Amino acid sequence: MAIKHALSVTRTQDFAAWYQAVVSEADMAEESGVRGCMVIRPWGYGIWERMQRLLDDAIKATGHENCYFPLFIPLSYFEKEAEHVEGFAKEMAVVTHHRLKAVDGKLVVDPDAKLEEPLVVRPTSETVIGAAFSRWVQSWRDLPVLINQWANVVRWEMRTRMFLRTTEFLWQEGHTAHVSEGEAREHTLRMLEVYRRFAEECVAMPVVAGEKPENERFPGAVATYSIEAMMQDGKALQAGTSHFLGTTFSQAQNIRFQNASGELELAQTTSWGVSTRMIGGMIMTHGDDDGLRVPPRLAPHQVVIVPMLRDTEEDAAVLDYARALAAELHAQTALGEPIRALLDAKAIKASNKRWAWVKKGAPVIVEVGPRDVAAGNVAVIRRDRLYQESGKLDSSIQPRADFVAGVSELLEEIQSGMFAEAKTRLDANIRRGVTDFAELERFFAEAERFPGWVEVEWAKPTGAELEAVDQRLKALKLTLRNVPESAGAATGPCIFTGKPAMERVLVGRSY
Amino acid sequence: MAIKHALSVTRTQDFAAWYQAVVSEADMAEESGVRGCMVIRPWGYGIWERMQRLLDDAIKATGHENCYFPLFIPLSYFEKEAEHVEGFAKEMAVVTHHRLKAVDGKLVVDPDAKLEEPLVVRPTSETVIGAAFSRWVQSWRDLPVLINQWANVVRWEMRTRMFLRTTEFLWQEGHTAHVSEGEAREHTLRMLEVYRRFAEECVAMPVVAGEKPENERFPGAVATYSIEAMMQDGKALQAGTSHFLGTTFSQAQNIRFQNASGELELAQTTSWGVSTRMIGGMIMTHGDDDGLRVPPRLAPHQVVIVPMLRDTEEDAAVLDYARALAAELHAQTALGEPIRALLDAKAIKASNKRWAWVKKGAPVIVEVGPRDVAAGNVAVIRRDRLYQESGKLDSSIQPRADFVAGVSELLEEIQSGMFAEAKTRLDANIRRGVTDFAELERFFAEAERFPGWVEVEWAKPTGAELEAVDQRLKALKLTLRNVPESAGAATGPCIFTGKPAMERVLVGRSY
Repeated sequence: MAIKHALSVTRTQDFAAWYQAVVSEADMAEESGVRGCMVIRPWGYGIWERMQRLLDDAIKATGHENCYFPLFIPLSYFEKEAEHVEGFAKEMAVVTHHRLKAVDGKLVVDPDAKLEEPLVVRPTSETVIGAAFSRWVQSWRDLPVLINQWANVVRWEMRTRMFLRTTEFLWQEGHTAHVSEGEAREHTLRMLEVYRRFAEECVAMPVVAGEKPENERFPGAVATYSIEAMMQDGKALQAGTSHFLGTTFSQAQNIRFQNASGELELAQTTSWGVSTRMIGGMIMTHGDDDGLRVPPRLAPHQVVIVPMLRDTEEDAAVLDYARALAAELHAQTALGEPIRALLDAKAIKASNKRWAWVKKGAPVIVEVGPRDVAAGNVAVIRRDRLYQESGKLDSSIQPRADFVAGVSELLEEIQSGMFAEAKTRLDANIRRGVTDFAELERFFAEAERFPGWVEVEWAKPTGAELEAVDQRLKALKLTLRNVPESAGAATGPCIFTGKPAMERVLVGRSY
Repeated sequence: MAIKHALSVTRTQDFAAWYQAVVSEADMAEESGVRGCMVIRPWGYGIWERMQRLLDDAIKATGHENCYFPLFIPLSYFEKEAEHVEGFAKEMAVVTHHRLKAVDGKLVVDPDAKLEEPLVVRPTSETVIGAAFSRWVQSWRDLPVLINQWANVVRWEMRTRMFLRTTEFLWQEGHTAHVSEGEAREHTLRMLEVYRRFAEECVAMPVVAGEKPENERFPGAVATYSIEAMMQDGKALQAGTSHFLGTTFSQAQNIRFQNASGELELAQTTSWGVSTRMIGGMIMTHGDDDGLRVPPRLAPHQVVIVPMLRDTEEDAAVLDYARALAAELHAQTALGEPIRALLDAKAIKASNKRWAWVKKGAPVIVEVGPRDVAAGNVAVIRRDRLYQESGKLDSSIQPRADFVAGVSELLEEIQSGMFAEAKTRLDANIRRGVTDFAELERFFAEAERFPGWVEVEWAKPTGAELEAVDQRLKALKLTLRNVPESAGAATGPCIFTGKPAMERVLVGRSY
């Protein structure tokens, strides 16, 4: 039986259109009317709040404290670090005036209110936080400084896409300063591991953690690491980055400390960030042709109870039953937290509510009607297994007590099942053993819907040689992703240069 | 015995300098180098995070969901609501360009990257949220819309003061739309009550809730309500506002719905906000000459354990003892949450740590040394009762088990004691029975350090008559605060106009 899915476009038909449909039909976000900026709606923002809560706990557990730094950064701050500004100069929002005035009934920018120094809306905060670090750090006793901020940042983007690339986006940016290179490098990898665990354990999104090649480094970084996730169209999404900055910013911002021997040294700094882009990753990892599927750890509501109300006198008993069920669920825990259950009693047809929650991807939907009340049952829909083999919607009638007793295990099973499904896809779609460039070219040329990635051996070229590799790949719409931490040693020649290979690197299409 | 306090300036000597000293010595915030913007440091931001958590819970408990709207608002949005823009026009940061470029090694704003329409950095979001509401609301079934956002906003201020008035500040802004005026007015007052409870129960800061006079209304509002708190210099701090906006913004932004009879109606909207200014209120309500005092509900660390380490072999036993104590405390709850205890094991002299935590205002400081370990004791300092009558620091040696058994009650006692102290001060310093203007003038002229407020009867003048009242008060550096919900009925003549009075209004100096 052909299933009639809830979205008007499927992943196979048009993945990009499908993505927009999920964002819209799941009430995640919408165009704001402000170029490149979106409105994040309650369901989308609720998922972001869950991500914040879980990642913030992990960031605090590794010794960081949250702070808040200014939105505006004076232009001159960017001049101090040439390589950094080069990487961002093309895309910053600039505040030049501080007043409007009315002229002939129209509002205009008041020319008398021009700022002496233009202010840049932060694209990232290394410069302004570096300036604070230089005030805070005097002695080795003041180190390490381990801080984080949750903030909005702005990068002027020409082509935007909700959650994946927007002019304004939300993120956390961690910034640390250390006494030694070794400690700072270790911390860079510690935070990469925090991100890997967050992606895999909370977002149920398997990732490959590794170092980015030189050409993909953050402007000013000595080394950049990333977690890369495979989307359902086979493309790579860089879902988080961690940078070892060496003394680039401590030189520019003068972050110096007296070491134990009384000598002045430059601090070694790191920075690392995860943004609302992670929500795009979650959508393209778990969504299906019926909409979004949210992993239970991230779901603002893990179990949604839909009462079947018919404007009859039976409604009161159905509502009482649903309320009691919600209370029973709230008293349970799953995945280490109290269960988040919602009774959706809005004045909307029950079947419309059911499909709205399917499209939003609530992990479990429970329907209760007069017959369920009479029999002490509930009708349970698992969002991760929506249909029976026959193609019929899989709504399973269960004794209410059994459902309540098993709900914790059910949510844990859904969480781990979603990860396992995505992990299988990732592992099955990294092609190894491609040893010459023509084969690489053929692989991606022949790949239809799901090219996946190819892991190749390379000599880790730098400078102009790397630039040439980058251009050859770009011609095929490919990029170097990262050098997986877990990759085996190189044994053969470099696929790009023929020289002896030094390591293995992932190649793929990307967002 | 004259007490040598921890701050170099006392409240009596110079209240404004004392305030700056607390902000700085408690590591709350510092100048950022960016005009009018501050860096909120971990202790200050930790308190803000506690405020966010508690207020967010209360906002969600009243049915609101969080969203996120764009930082930038196109200039034209402000033109739609004339009264609103009039109120803000003088003080907005305007983005006019989207690119920088390097010219002769200097960074400049790229003149080719001028925006067609300037973007205003949000001073508040009624306009852009109103535009979203007009998309979301079609039928009475879509109402009420109850949303909130936590965000940064910018108002270009000429004279800034940390937490109290900064160019950029953090806040929450709630926005709702309703079917009827009655429901919207009721909601405006419901949120005012949420703020009153938050201020009194969490910040331990007593407030007077009431309606602001016409001249103090939010631009575009039909009615504005506030909570007003009395600072230790007798001045008023407006600590939160709730606005009934009527159809001002629904007209401007076209928020219309089909009512149950099928007719189109304008929605009635509200908005309400509390900002990082609340932190300034907390400082000026509870701080003393030794620094900040943080109410236990807001303290990021409620109990700080300072081990007396001497670089001897006894240190290990002291640290073990301190760690075990921290674990015992974490297993307790106080004020409805697990106790937040910190073991401060930094490599700093114990007495310096003690005074740092006194200045930061941790509610309870526990010191443990080798003798305490041997005897099973702890030395407890209560920040709300720092000195004995003799002027000596009050450090009380207690059996550790007794301290742990009583800590929950202790924190609750400190929280309620701080509120009671401030409430007594507020109640004692609202002067009633002032019936003519000369007496009002004399009262404030003669008041020395602590003028407090005066509650007078007035005829609630409007327009030019109100403007005249405002000017007379302004000449005395006074303002109308609000008409307290709890004030008695008016019985005599208006103190300003001599006409029969309609209600009682508070007059005072203000921040």
